[in-house]
Amino acid sequence: MEGGKGGLEGVVACATEIGVIDGDAGRLLYRGYEIADLVDSRASFEDVAYLLWMGCLPTQKERSDLCQALDRARDLSPPFEHFLRSLPAGDPMTSLRTAVSALGLFDGVDTPSPLACATWLTGRLAAIVAAQYRLARGQQVLASRSDLGHAANVLYLLFGREPSPLEACVLDVALVLHADHELNASTFAARVCSATLADMYAAITSAVGTLSGPLHGAANAAANRALEEIGQPERASGWVREHLARGEKIPGFGHRVYRHRWDPRAVILRSLARDLAQQKGDQRLFAITEALERAVEGERELYPNVDLYSGVVYRLLGIGPELFTPLFAVARIVGWTAHVMEQYAHNRIIRPRAEYVGPQPRRVADERLA
Amino acid sequence: MEGGKGGLEGVVACATEIGVIDGDAGRLLYRGYEIADLVDSRASFEDVAYLLWMGCLPTQKERSDLCQALDRARDLSPPFEHFLRSLPAGDPMTSLRTAVSALGLFDGVDTPSPLACATWLTGRLAAIVAAQYRLARGQQVLASRSDLGHAANVLYLLFGREPSPLEACVLDVALVLHADHELNASTFAARVCSATLADMYAAITSAVGTLSGPLHGAANAAANRALEEIGQPERASGWVREHLARGEKIPGFGHRVYRHRWDPRAVILRSLARDLAQQKGDQRLFAITEALERAVEGERELYPNVDLYSGVVYRLLGIGPELFTPLFAVARIVGWTAHVMEQYAHNRIIRPRAEYVGPQPRRVADERLA
Repeated sequence: MEGGKGGLEGVVACATEIGVIDGDAGRLLYRGYEIADLVDSRASFEDVAYLLWMGCLPTQKERSDLCQALDRARDLSPPFEHFLRSLPAGDPMTSLRTAVSALGLFDGVDTPSPLACATWLTGRLAAIVAAQYRLARGQQVLASRSDLGHAANVLYLLFGREPSPLEACVLDVALVLHADHELNASTFAARVCSATLADMYAAITSAVGTLSGPLHGAANAAANRALEEIGQPERASGWVREHLARGEKIPGFGHRVYRHRWDPRAVILRSLARDLAQQKGDQRLFAITEALERAVEGERELYPNVDLYSGVVYRLLGIGPELFTPLFAVARIVGWTAHVMEQYAHNRIIRPRAEYVGPQPRRVADERLA
Repeated sequence: MEGGKGGLEGVVACATEIGVIDGDAGRLLYRGYEIADLVDSRASFEDVAYLLWMGCLPTQKERSDLCQALDRARDLSPPFEHFLRSLPAGDPMTSLRTAVSALGLFDGVDTPSPLACATWLTGRLAAIVAAQYRLARGQQVLASRSDLGHAANVLYLLFGREPSPLEACVLDVALVLHADHELNASTFAARVCSATLADMYAAITSAVGTLSGPLHGAANAAANRALEEIGQPERASGWVREHLARGEKIPGFGHRVYRHRWDPRAVILRSLARDLAQQKGDQRLFAITEALERAVEGERELYPNVDLYSGVVYRLLGIGPELFTPLFAVARIVGWTAHVMEQYAHNRIIRPRAEYVGPQPRRVADERLA
């Protein structure tokens, strides 16, 4: 049997045509396109969804069909909205996971194709995140606006106000940057589930649950807590030294894949955060983050990852930390569903082995079985 | 990077002390005890749960505490029962997955320890399966009976009648045999999820969703359909030849791990099925299964797996195929939770790599982005 360093590090679990991470070069490509190129070319979240699912960028007609399908999917049915109201208040990711799982009962699984199901789930999941956010605050659930793109709709459905073009654009880019990242834990979970030929609702429920872990989707909230704890730029270097001295990790820094380079998503998010901070006239958080970055640079070879600047961007958009992980799901569902479709198309059940390190064979008669 | 034959076959994903499958010898051991030894020694499902969780068989006091905790967990709260009533009718595994996910909201995650949470979920899941079965038939949900063991309670909560000692014993053994099986897909899914430090509710929700796949938990229902299709012993060999000629798999035969031997669980279930068929004076299904077994033996080196005889046993207990996969979950939750506890205790995030086989690097400017 073959091993690895634990955690399947460096072990190839499957082949993929969806994307590739070149960790050494600090590059992330979706279907051959570098993410920076997609962002510079103003590819929208919808374009990238189509690209990841279908392998090519959409024509105008294909994009317009997709936007319409997403708009329909963002309108929750009255029985489902009633179901959301009936759930007890709780952790947002637990609520989201339960709602996504229940979609399998409310919407049925008789969708015409995996692509239609992926589109449906992408629209639905964004609407659920917004609806649960508003219901938790005693606010009315809003209807999707067909004149707005997906990212602008997310902000509208959350806050009930049409975002500025810059705000919509910034969230759009953030969604694009979070859309896929090869076999991260939640995407791998979706593949493990769908490899049993379980349906897409089951696979996405697994992915949402896996994303909820503090080591995965909740890492951006941890980075945000660190920034709040530091509180002002001057305190950053002391805070970093204390943390490193205690052997603790610095949230928002380091990545198993990007070891010797910046996470390319962090590079783009950093520049968006600077623009947004300037536009909003609110430099506080950006200044602390820059100071933290310099402080870490002076101590260790550790580079900012996607979680450091995504939180800063979200905060500047008026989005609180309780929405960070749900918004990660709003974006990553595109990658999850792309990988599920690929798994179905070239399926083999995913069943590794464990190395047994437990007790030697023994007999019950030799022990007490009172 | 290291590969494998695809599907992580033969790749070691982690170390475990919980159990070991010796495929070549056709042996399955829980914490060092062979399953046949546990069954012969009349270890109950509760004993085996304790064994898999804690590493040793329970004392009388430990067993009695566990039985009491399971009894409390089998009584669903009125708000949760109301929630179950509010779910639309649908596939039993989709309903079960949604209910288990919702437990995270209804019961909270503030359980005192992973062991308490595992016990709680084990009792709860059995009660949910029974409640959903009865609600789908317009029947009242029943209260757990503290004078009955877990297996007897499952039958009582499902059918509203106290099972005979043989019936209770047979289901007890079936639950013991399904309690753990190393890194099968659903257990691996639970570990992938919990390795992000997501909570136990998230991990078990992933596992239930993964078990729902036709290639995993639903395989016993497929074996049952084959037996029904064959219909009488004389037709078995013709049916097998036709299926093999079409290149189709024979459900209930063959296993990735037990290649050259009987699945040891099938050996025990076969003998239980024979006893039960005799006692009930209903030999029909057992006779077809035996004929199928002989027919396959004559054609290929393929041995019966756990799914072939579990369905026969369940049918003889009056359990229909719609309950086969949910009952698999009722048993396997013990293994799932044992593996989640082990993952928490020695955690490392599970993040394999994919081999990229997609398009070469390209530029958006070179393509149409209309």
